[in-house]
Amino acid sequence: MDSGNLTWAIVASALVVFMAPGIAFFYGGMVRAKSVVSMMMLSFGAMGLVGVLWVIYGFNMATLTDTDAGGFPGFQFAGNPFTENFALAGYDTATLIGATYGATFAVATTALISGAIADRARFGSWMIFAGIWATIVYFPVAGWVWGSGGWIYDLGEIFGFSASTIDYAGGTAVHINSAAAALALALVLGRRVGFAKGVHRPHNVPLVLLGVAILWFGWFGFNAGAEGTLGLLGPENDTVGRIIVNTFVAGAAAILGWVVVEKIKDGKATSVGAGSGAIAGLVAITPACATLDPIWAIVLGVIAGAACCLAIELKYKLGFDDSLDVVGLHGIGGFLGCWYLGFFAQGTGLFMGGNYEQLVLQVVASVAVALYSFVVTYGVGLGIEKTIGFRVKNEDEVAGLDTAVHGEEAYALI
Amino acid sequence: MDSGNLTWAIVASALVVFMAPGIAFFYGGMVRAKSVVSMMMLSFGAMGLVGVLWVIYGFNMATLTDTDAGGFPGFQFAGNPFTENFALAGYDTATLIGATYGATFAVATTALISGAIADRARFGSWMIFAGIWATIVYFPVAGWVWGSGGWIYDLGEIFGFSASTIDYAGGTAVHINSAAAALALALVLGRRVGFAKGVHRPHNVPLVLLGVAILWFGWFGFNAGAEGTLGLLGPENDTVGRIIVNTFVAGAAAILGWVVVEKIKDGKATSVGAGSGAIAGLVAITPACATLDPIWAIVLGVIAGAACCLAIELKYKLGFDDSLDVVGLHGIGGFLGCWYLGFFAQGTGLFMGGNYEQLVLQVVASVAVALYSFVVTYGVGLGIEKTIGFRVKNEDEVAGLDTAVHGEEAYALI
Amino acid sequence: MDSGNLTWAIVASALVVFMAPGIAFFYGGMVRAKSVVSMMMLSFGAMGLVGVLWVIYGFNMATLTDTDAGGFPGFQFAGNPFTENFALAGYDTATLIGATYGATFAVATTALISGAIADRARFGSWMIFAGIWATIVYFPVAGWVWGSGGWIYDLGEIFGFSASTIDYAGGTAVHINSAAAALALALVLGRRVGFAKGVHRPHNVPLVLLGVAILWFGWFGFNAGAEGTLGLLGPENDTVGRIIVNTFVAGAAAILGWVVVEKIKDGKATSVGAGSGAIAGLVAITPACATLDPIWAIVLGVIAGAACCLAIELKYKLGFDDSLDVVGLHGIGGFLGCWYLGFFAQGTGLFMGGNYEQLVLQVVASVAVALYSFVVTYGVGLGIEKTIGFRVKNEDEVAGLDTAVHGEEAYALI
Repeated sequence: MDSGNLTWAIVASALVVFMAPGIAFFYGGMVRAKSVVSMMMLSFGAMGLVGVLWVIYGFNMATLTDTDAGGFPGFQFAGNPFTENFALAGYDTATLIGATYGATFAVATTALISGAIADRARFGSWMIFAGIWATIVYFPVAGWVWGSGGWIYDLGEIFGFSASTIDYAGGTAVHINSAAAALALALVLGRRVGFAKGVHRPHNVPLVLLGVAILWFGWFGFNAGAEGTLGLLGPENDTVGRIIVNTFVAGAAAILGWVVVEKIKDGKATSVGAGSGAIAGLVAITPACATLDPIWAIVLGVIAGAACCLAIELKYKLGFDDSLDVVGLHGIGGFLGCWYLGFFAQGTGLFMGGNYEQLVLQVVASVAVALYSFVVTYGVGLGIEKTIGFRVKNEDEVAGLDTAVHGEEAYALI
Repeated sequence: MDSGNLTWAIVASALVVFMAPGIAFFYGGMVRAKSVVSMMMLSFGAMGLVGVLWVIYGFNMATLTDTDAGGFPGFQFAGNPFTENFALAGYDTATLIGATYGATFAVATTALISGAIADRARFGSWMIFAGIWATIVYFPVAGWVWGSGGWIYDLGEIFGFSASTIDYAGGTAVHINSAAAALALALVLGRRVGFAKGVHRPHNVPLVLLGVAILWFGWFGFNAGAEGTLGLLGPENDTVGRIIVNTFVAGAAAILGWVVVEKIKDGKATSVGAGSGAIAGLVAITPACATLDPIWAIVLGVIAGAACCLAIELKYKLGFDDSLDVVGLHGIGGFLGCWYLGFFAQGTGLFMGGNYEQLVLQVVASVAVALYSFVVTYGVGLGIEKTIGFRVKNEDEVAGLDTAVHGEEAYALI
Repeated sequence: MDSGNLTWAIVASALVVFMAPGIAFFYGGMVRAKSVVSMMMLSFGAMGLVGVLWVIYGFNMATLTDTDAGGFPGFQFAGNPFTENFALAGYDTATLIGATYGATFAVATTALISGAIADRARFGSWMIFAGIWATIVYFPVAGWVWGSGGWIYDLGEIFGFSASTIDYAGGTAVHINSAAAALALALVLGRRVGFAKGVHRPHNVPLVLLGVAILWFGWFGFNAGAEGTLGLLGPENDTVGRIIVNTFVAGAAAILGWVVVEKIKDGKATSVGAGSGAIAGLVAITPACATLDPIWAIVLGVIAGAACCLAIELKYKLGFDDSLDVVGLHGIGGFLGCWYLGFFAQGTGLFMGGNYEQLVLQVVASVAVALYSFVVTYGVGLGIEKTIGFRVKNEDEVAGLDTAVHGEEAYALI
């Protein structure tokens, strides 16, 4: 691995490490001032636990999948992740950086889920959940999607197609995965006290936008980092330019898509909308970043911004309290980006010289991950709720979790 | 393009993307709590619109200038930017990254202008302004200054000089350009209600300093990124080290210059002064970063900090409400850096073995850009104000734009 | 120096520049709202002054140490730092970037000290202190530890050992150094009015965690940057992967260590604890990052988190007001990481196939730096206090330094 690729792999890892607090601030700014500490702790706690678990055995679970054992679908391990290269022992420099890069994805994906359970989750229960979820949902799903021999990675081959599943930086493994888990947890924990449209408003808009800023910044590492960890940068590279421009312009276009819809719908364009729009566009471009011409990334961004702006109303109609819109942003945006590829992927998309195959692969992959994640998460969440309890007492929720759970007040401004 | 240059071009692009929210926080913290949302939206909105326009046709406008059509001064296009490589179609990886890097400059330059019109601009009108301004001011000026065949780029040749205009990272194209536009808009929109020294104070100093921190961090990409996009990094490179140390030390020196003047003048050194000083030094070093020895960067930094600290008083004396001192920081700092080169540029500066030529080029280039930007911006701004209206109603300004225009309150801390 | 190494050296420098405001926010969020401006100004002021001094003569002081003049211990200069390569004149690109990288360490180390003197230091006196301290403590100590010919660098040779002192990214030069100075200043300035456990609480927890986030992000540059400035990245590199994964996982593990101890001890896990835990782990891994297998980095992280959580209580028992726990985090964490190497360093640690030598070197180096820094700092601090005064008047401290010293209020939120 040459010095340029090593450098990019390092920087991309650092950028995605920065995204975990980005999620903490994006989410933290959106809740009430009485539970911002607790909201941020869900991300920082996941950073601690999932980061350590990934290094100990998660990386091995997600990569040691190139096996003849096969099976569809299922867990595929070439070796025992607790013994083989335990805690990354014996790996070379490039692999260690790649493993760190992978760790940041595991952390971010887990942290994203927490947006669904704002204001009402016990911290200890969340930590137990995070450890279990990462182990039996994220680590294997990452292996299925990106691991050599993973069944989603090989889905085209399994179906006898000439096309292959495209999930470049994680529309299914990251966004749909976390959104399905978020929906499940929102159902397990139930609605917040007083849940209704307009009741829970962001307590600190600059903090929300700081989260957006850090996430967008980090997203360049998120989307393009694999070009470095795989050592693909160099004179022959014809992918990374597209990734970079698309990661920029899909976010920009989605700001426009969201605020225009919002202006039409509600009469006013909001800053939380602009920020959420950027995130929606970035989610949608994540699986598609390497495969779209910039003009189609712009179109995808506009659609994602507009669609997610409408989608976040769904929870009020359907009655589930996905508090900070993990489903509306990462679910809808993730599906959009994933399926859009079926039509617009260079060479294989239905409108780009290909046939139905790409679309079929995208639909099967995304639905499979969503189902697996939803079902397993629901089971794990319910198990925790029924045993040690997951939701806090109502009076603690109303009083705000910060003092009740953490003994802290976020602000003492006077 | 080798992997190291590609990596730096990518990272520099991400760094400058991060600067747009940096501007939002720097400006947002400086206004009242009632209009911080609206202030930040001017930057985020510019990010959305100008980012998309740049990808669609701006990059082509700014680069397709190598033409025999010539003309001085004027718009020079080798091709139709709407048809030739429309939306970056057909470009290779290195060009796509360079185009993204350029996009971030277009966004940041436009966003900078917004500091002049705090608390009193309609969001929709700003968006229309931003799109027009980028198209008929920033895109062509960038082409004049940096495009092969651009008249400012070729000014030395046009004058028959042996020296060439130096505007390394955009003293004229970025800072003077945005400051001249800011002055024009400040005049078009008029003064805020109750405009007077000491009336409008920052509502959130940590947010201001966060903006400064992000800007300084991003400035390394801003000043040195072209070394990557042009593929100049490598064993033979003798420029980038100077850029990096100067970008660090001019900002540091300018903190000292500002707070010392402030201490002498007002008896107290302020943190907003320290932050503004850093920005002043970074502005001044922008055109000069590649051409000065570190000791002269320190001198320039001290001068810029001191001069801008005095310059921001001007608006009260002259009676224009450049609310957040775009003219005082980016105008004065930009001219300072640009002209300073006439004396201290290695080899060509008047005091560094050169003659008057460098100074003439710097003066002509900076004045030309300032005039063009001021005149066109004034016309565009006035056109918008006289038709759909640019300034909000007085009662909305007094009440604060956040609820009136965006339906949001920035803080709900209790 | 190839383009990849240059790129990493540049990015690492920018990352560590970003750490200085990170310290400002970490510390600023922890003090009362009435003195957050003053707290942040200690970091920004250090950035200005120490940055400039380093460029003018500090880099030369810290690197021109390869001399036959020798002497143990003592100042060793091969040349006059004020005349030889004054202000970095004549250095090539790679050296200039390395010098900038070094500047950021000088700034960060000085800024760290300020945590011990929250709420009660005069800004002007701090600035004078910072300039003197950098000159007679940091610059020479950096030369001793990292400079070719520095006596700590050569300590193994001096002792006739086969092992060498390990202080990869600055457990002694940075963390123990700043912590010893912090203790000295805390003693010189005395306790805050009303100093007691639970009296002074963070005024802005999200700001504290933002500081942590920026610091962790920047720490990748801090720990791994020398691989770039020394041009060591490339196919043969077998160090940087370990640095990156350890910098990630030690911070993560230390979050767990801290919050578990806190939960047991106080019944509640706090977010400031989680953030402080991450910092403790990062401090401890700093000297050790290049020399530990990831599993031992995890163990070190857990120990550091747990130990520092207990250590920050010491100040209340011993009665010194190290206000924001520079000793508890950077002192204890620094010693832990430094000594841990004596046992677990690959090849030379007592438990890793080595003998007592590594441990002896680590103990001597860390104690020597701590003693030197403490004694000199105490003298300088006392000198300032006895002449121009270092501590503010009690009434200013009670009223809050922001208005008294800087004429600013941090927040005007209503």
